[in-house]
Amino acid sequence: LWIGDDAAIVHGTTGELLVTADAVVAGVHADLALSRLDNFGWKALSAAVSDIAAMGGRPLHCVVTVLVPPDTRLELLFAGLIDAAVAWACPIVGGDLSNAPEIAVSVTVNGATDAGTAVRRSGARPGDSLFVTGPVGGSAAGLRLLRAGADRNAAEVRAHLWPLARLGEGQAARQSGASAMIDVSDGLSIDLHRLADASSVGFELDEVPVAPGADLEEALGGGEDYELVIAHGDPEALRRAFEQAGLRPPIRLGQCVEDLNERTFEGQPLARLGFEHRLET
Amino acid sequence: LWIGDDAAIVHGTTGELLVTADAVVAGVHADLALSRLDNFGWKALSAAVSDIAAMGGRPLHCVVTVLVPPDTRLELLFAGLIDAAVAWACPIVGGDLSNAPEIAVSVTVNGATDAGTAVRRSGARPGDSLFVTGPVGGSAAGLRLLRAGADRNAAEVRAHLWPLARLGEGQAARQSGASAMIDVSDGLSIDLHRLADASSVGFELDEVPVAPGADLEEALGGGEDYELVIAHGDPEALRRAFEQAGLRPPIRLGQCVEDLNERTFEGQPLARLGFEHRLET
Repeated sequence: LWIGDDAAIVHGTTGELLVTADAVVAGVHADLALSRLDNFGWKALSAAVSDIAAMGGRPLHCVVTVLVPPDTRLELLFAGLIDAAVAWACPIVGGDLSNAPEIAVSVTVNGATDAGTAVRRSGARPGDSLFVTGPVGGSAAGLRLLRAGADRNAAEVRAHLWPLARLGEGQAARQSGASAMIDVSDGLSIDLHRLADASSVGFELDEVPVAPGADLEEALGGGEDYELVIAHGDPEALRRAFEQAGLRPPIRLGQCVEDLNERTFEGQPLARLGFEHRLET
Repeated sequence: LWIGDDAAIVHGTTGELLVTADAVVAGVHADLALSRLDNFGWKALSAAVSDIAAMGGRPLHCVVTVLVPPDTRLELLFAGLIDAAVAWACPIVGGDLSNAPEIAVSVTVNGATDAGTAVRRSGARPGDSLFVTGPVGGSAAGLRLLRAGADRNAAEVRAHLWPLARLGEGQAARQSGASAMIDVSDGLSIDLHRLADASSVGFELDEVPVAPGADLEEALGGGEDYELVIAHGDPEALRRAFEQAGLRPPIRLGQCVEDLNERTFEGQPLARLGFEHRLET
């Protein structure tokens, strides 16, 4: 797992390099009384890979910094990291390991796309349709059920413990000409607001797909679903691209509008529901 | 400082990509009762850049994960990070910021060299000369003086608070054909042992240059000097390359020998003095 040199040596890429970092801290992003260390490792790496998915990229490799108190079950944490690295074809090429008072894992992923094609948050235009790659709120519902004592293998609980990065969806969206994209890490509502802020548009939502077992509040503000929100000027092209790639059809949420202060769901103003723990500025 | 997209978009590189991660944790790697948050940020970024220097590479950019308790003076921490990013021409292109019970900063640096030219730890051969780019023990001496109440501006204390990455030295060593290289992050002795382990050689040291104000123990085991240890089959070529680049002459330590169990300083066995906090395997 750990490199023998001061830095890992990997092949360069001639296209665009996508670089992202994501930290998961015990007690902030995960409750280790409810989830295990393999879930923690899986989530840390998958959340970072999801950022590459949200640009329409493919992961190349990652480096992992692991901070742990003495006596942490490192083998379980590493097992989750390695499972995710295999699942997302994102080999761990290096990292650092240190003692710390609390468990924290930081993952930096280098990804790639063809030059000039990465999908930003800022490209949505009035009139673009808004889609999401799947129902949301499943992770929040799973956490609620875990707290109530549910089995780790219940479908909703698995959505919380083993979140998926939507790499195929992100690449199909990019190739079909998506104008903007973001992953639902902190909540559908807040992440939609962020996309709209970056694009200087408003939005009108008609429908929010609620995951089985979740309620509407969890769907709007739950976070950690890692589905992708996609803005697209040609909805049919997006649907065709998903069908050709064998992916679930994207679900239409509504559309972007010119008035950037109009941010509604079923005609009512939509608050910025979700987590702000990332303190983004 | 922080990116607006899920990932930063940067130019790719056709040569070799060097990837390294380094974490600095308050209470483990730095005592914030003695050093300030700008020193903490400077050290975190500089230590990671030093890993690129130790491969003979140049930094391209970095991403920074900052974990802090509420009420941390982020502007001071960021000032140190930004000063180091400017000093090493290593722009911060992204990162993550989260709450945590203790301050920890993790920096991932992407660097580059021409394909096939990165200098590993493992290339030293019996008969190669061993050099270090400067006297060592200055950081440990500075920490000792700080604990005794010395002024922050004393030269030895500055070596501890504002360590330098030896980028020019690393590149000159690579271009002149260095066979192996490592940076002195955990102690000259332990880092020499690591280079020798990776290269399957022993070593005989004749001389260890002790930094002003430091003692021999600090020079051998102090760590955090970030000078480079260089193995080279052609000492004159190395000296010429340093002279042509306007660098201080490299200081000869001794030579590599075939018997990998022979690890001596002035004829006596040299213990693995230094920090093991990185838990490298």
